[in-house]
Amino acid sequence: MELNEPKVVAFIDLGTNSARLLIIRLNLNCSYSVLTQQKEVVRLGEGEFADNILTSDAITRTVIVLSRFAEMALSFGASEIVAVATSATRDARNRDTLITRIREEAGFELNVISGPEEARLIWLGVSSGVKIGKTKSLFIDIGGGSTEIIVGDQYEPFLLRSLKLGAIRTTNTYIPQDLTGPISPSVVQTIQKHIRSRATHTIRHVVGKKVQLAFGSSGTITTLEAIAAGLNSVTPHQPGVITRNELSAIISLLCSLPLKERRNVQGLNPDRADIIIAGVLILESLLGQANINEIRISSRSLRDGLLIDYLSKIPGFPYAEQKPIRESSIQHLGRACHINEPHANHVRKLALSLFDSARVSGLHNLSNLSRELLSYAAVLHDTGQFISFPGHHQHSFYVITHAPLLGFNEHEILIIALVTRYHRKKMPRRKDSSYGPLSNEDKMMVQILSIFLRMAENLDRSHDGRVTCAKLLVSERRKITLAIECTGDCSLEQWAILGDIRSFERIMKRGLKIEVLPSSDGEKQHP
Amino acid sequence: MELNEPKVVAFIDLGTNSARLLIIRLNLNCSYSVLTQQKEVVRLGEGEFADNILTSDAITRTVIVLSRFAEMALSFGASEIVAVATSATRDARNRDTLITRIREEAGFELNVISGPEEARLIWLGVSSGVKIGKTKSLFIDIGGGSTEIIVGDQYEPFLLRSLKLGAIRTTNTYIPQDLTGPISPSVVQTIQKHIRSRATHTIRHVVGKKVQLAFGSSGTITTLEAIAAGLNSVTPHQPGVITRNELSAIISLLCSLPLKERRNVQGLNPDRADIIIAGVLILESLLGQANINEIRISSRSLRDGLLIDYLSKIPGFPYAEQKPIRESSIQHLGRACHINEPHANHVRKLALSLFDSARVSGLHNLSNLSRELLSYAAVLHDTGQFISFPGHHQHSFYVITHAPLLGFNEHEILIIALVTRYHRKKMPRRKDSSYGPLSNEDKMMVQILSIFLRMAENLDRSHDGRVTCAKLLVSERRKITLAIECTGDCSLEQWAILGDIRSFERIMKRGLKIEVLPSSDGEKQHP
Repeated sequence: MELNEPKVVAFIDLGTNSARLLIIRLNLNCSYSVLTQQKEVVRLGEGEFADNILTSDAITRTVIVLSRFAEMALSFGASEIVAVATSATRDARNRDTLITRIREEAGFELNVISGPEEARLIWLGVSSGVKIGKTKSLFIDIGGGSTEIIVGDQYEPFLLRSLKLGAIRTTNTYIPQDLTGPISPSVVQTIQKHIRSRATHTIRHVVGKKVQLAFGSSGTITTLEAIAAGLNSVTPHQPGVITRNELSAIISLLCSLPLKERRNVQGLNPDRADIIIAGVLILESLLGQANINEIRISSRSLRDGLLIDYLSKIPGFPYAEQKPIRESSIQHLGRACHINEPHANHVRKLALSLFDSARVSGLHNLSNLSRELLSYAAVLHDTGQFISFPGHHQHSFYVITHAPLLGFNEHEILIIALVTRYHRKKMPRRKDSSYGPLSNEDKMMVQILSIFLRMAENLDRSHDGRVTCAKLLVSERRKITLAIECTGDCSLEQWAILGDIRSFERIMKRGLKIEVLPSSDGEKQHP
Repeated sequence: MELNEPKVVAFIDLGTNSARLLIIRLNLNCSYSVLTQQKEVVRLGEGEFADNILTSDAITRTVIVLSRFAEMALSFGASEIVAVATSATRDARNRDTLITRIREEAGFELNVISGPEEARLIWLGVSSGVKIGKTKSLFIDIGGGSTEIIVGDQYEPFLLRSLKLGAIRTTNTYIPQDLTGPISPSVVQTIQKHIRSRATHTIRHVVGKKVQLAFGSSGTITTLEAIAAGLNSVTPHQPGVITRNELSAIISLLCSLPLKERRNVQGLNPDRADIIIAGVLILESLLGQANINEIRISSRSLRDGLLIDYLSKIPGFPYAEQKPIRESSIQHLGRACHINEPHANHVRKLALSLFDSARVSGLHNLSNLSRELLSYAAVLHDTGQFISFPGHHQHSFYVITHAPLLGFNEHEILIIALVTRYHRKKMPRRKDSSYGPLSNEDKMMVQILSIFLRMAENLDRSHDGRVTCAKLLVSERRKITLAIECTGDCSLEQWAILGDIRSFERIMKRGLKIEVLPSSDGEKQHP
């Protein structure tokens, strides 16, 4: 993305407890200005976790707040809204209802992200606000539905985990709504055991990484710091830090009070009085297990991570990453699945050449994002093969849709997976159930990208790169020519590509003929 | 399996074109005697491949033949029938109809095997009939629905492939039924290109292995040898071998004749006159691509492989393998999925100890086969984790049901996958759709094995083997005690196992209490 004029962008983070908005202006001198920030409590996850269904009240509350956010973005002149949804939406079986209502009533696309991607964005947001260099640090973010745990330094994350542990989720499970009195030690113990059991695998990895610092973010944690500041303890409170001793004192204090009196505790927003106990128990337990005595508080969060992630893609901006996260997470998954990398990269090259030449020839006007997704689909098209060759396109679809690819939202992941799904065998039909919630425009895009990928794959049937170049060119009378260059005998490739002609002609509504040229790099083709 | 008295066993191989029966008697001196062999043409795959539906005529023909086989087995005193089904059944969407009818009308279980497992059994059958030592050899078996291609020596297979290429399948696709005249060169060319396209990946691997010999098996190939013997060619025919020149001559001859005259060709069973052209084109094309000039003919087949596979599991019999195929294919899949092997092996040990002690205590009377399947499920329980941790039990189920594990039939694979599927989260319900075609008895078995696996997994929550031993013992008044020994603090394990008590009590219909002892290997437990 190149910046040619100042641009206003809104970032929205829809969590389980609250929705946050950040509007910024990107300046031409590669800086940005914050125009506004907002936060509203929506309690989207309230009453959800027993059956993974968002209640209709919670959906309505959320749609109202997000519509207001969208209006605000508009009034600031925003030309783009980047909106992500986390745990509450991710886990809801009726999330499509929420997504559709937001699309129709608030007018923007809500993108669900995976737990590890959420963790990565939190790390981006928090770590970019502190100067830690190469010091390995632990980052903890306690949300309403999930808790993210990250180990990373300034430059990269080494561990990205999302636990199904959250202030609202845990409260709903262990503290009945009619329990308005003090919280008994046995309830506390049950919750602590639950937390320990959920977190043990992850904490084992954290301990193995030997972290030296810890940072906490999220409303729960900043609230705990505010409570700690108001405690009358022997040792004075150090601003911006919570110690484990303070957490123990907070637990004793809060558990001894009935809900009504808890609301009056200094530093505690009364709205949080019901869920703060679960929150403090989570933090205390995680630090205890990891044997860490104090944690620094950051007011930064996922929302800031969204901004940094956005800036990192604009040339010239200070956060432009050295190693693009999308590219490296695609490569990581491919390697975990034992793909043949030279073949995958050659298919990528051919698919992009078909995409580009077809765009120049006016066959489509798909965006650069589509092009990027095609390139990832090409790399991953054979990921399912290590499970078994027959049906490997379906196995690729399964693996890609279930692996939490970093740097992508679920909508983009679905498109990559669909394009690999259709790189061989039947072409998709418009009513195909695997399309899921895609719009008609996106379905059309998947069809076009699939045909490029299957042509590229067939053009490397021999898996040795003998077809060196493939382009789609306009010839007379609206006919299209597929011009391929090859070294050596490519009769197998020519035969294989014949099977794609009909699909191509149906989708592009143009006739296609094939023309074979010897490779322009001098080698002669052997007939 | 230990042999205490002579035993009669029947082996049945249900292919796409024919069904074969082999009945043998196992003698106490570790030898066997063949009692009878039969072969019947059933054309199970006739008319199937356009829509992957077995026709009801084909099902009925097959059920009649297999019922006759079962009666014959009975009259020879067989106490066991080992029956496998290949391509036609494997690919049929209505295969459960066939399996159920055979269970009800012929009285035995028909087990579907994967393509690679079919290839392995063919290699076992054919290679055990020749003496090739360490000479790398190619094995080709052309069936009605699939062609198996194997590279192996006497001791192990190096490549096991099953291609969706077969005499009936290819004929149905490319030679219309009303085409009763000669076959034109253009039809031959189309078929040849199709074969080449299907086989190219596999042949590339074959060529890379530098084979020195080739062996052919199956009715198609033995028929071709009989035709070759009757040709009036310049060079005399060498019995037991077909050369590529002979194959070319056979192609010219057969294609020049209308169907009616083809039936009279010497050496050709008239029943095969319609499908032999596809068969000879497949063989000629495979040899051509692999650049092999002659192939030796074997009359052995899958059916012999079933026998060898069976014998290899009986101590003392000459085919007892050095490296059991089941164990090594389980290990192979686990490693491909990057499992934590020490944890997996420890969970296996604990699960088997629970199984054994429970059986001694009279809690169940499941077979040794169930025990074996439990041990594989324990090894593979975390295979899905490399896709993503959340839902990894479901990913394990997906991977295991889709990976063609060697040495197993699909029924056994389903049981292993279900037990891993239920190693965490919800226990299965009786009407669970993932149970597929399992009998009620097998469903009960899955429940019992799952509870052992989930207890074993929870007993290694810390992933460091601190619980060294776990047994289920009968205490007074029909109550069961889970006695665990551990080194170090195992409070997390104790907490985790609490979640399994209710499921255990429901399935076993007994109360359960837990008793913790310090490890008997001397280390003291820290409370």
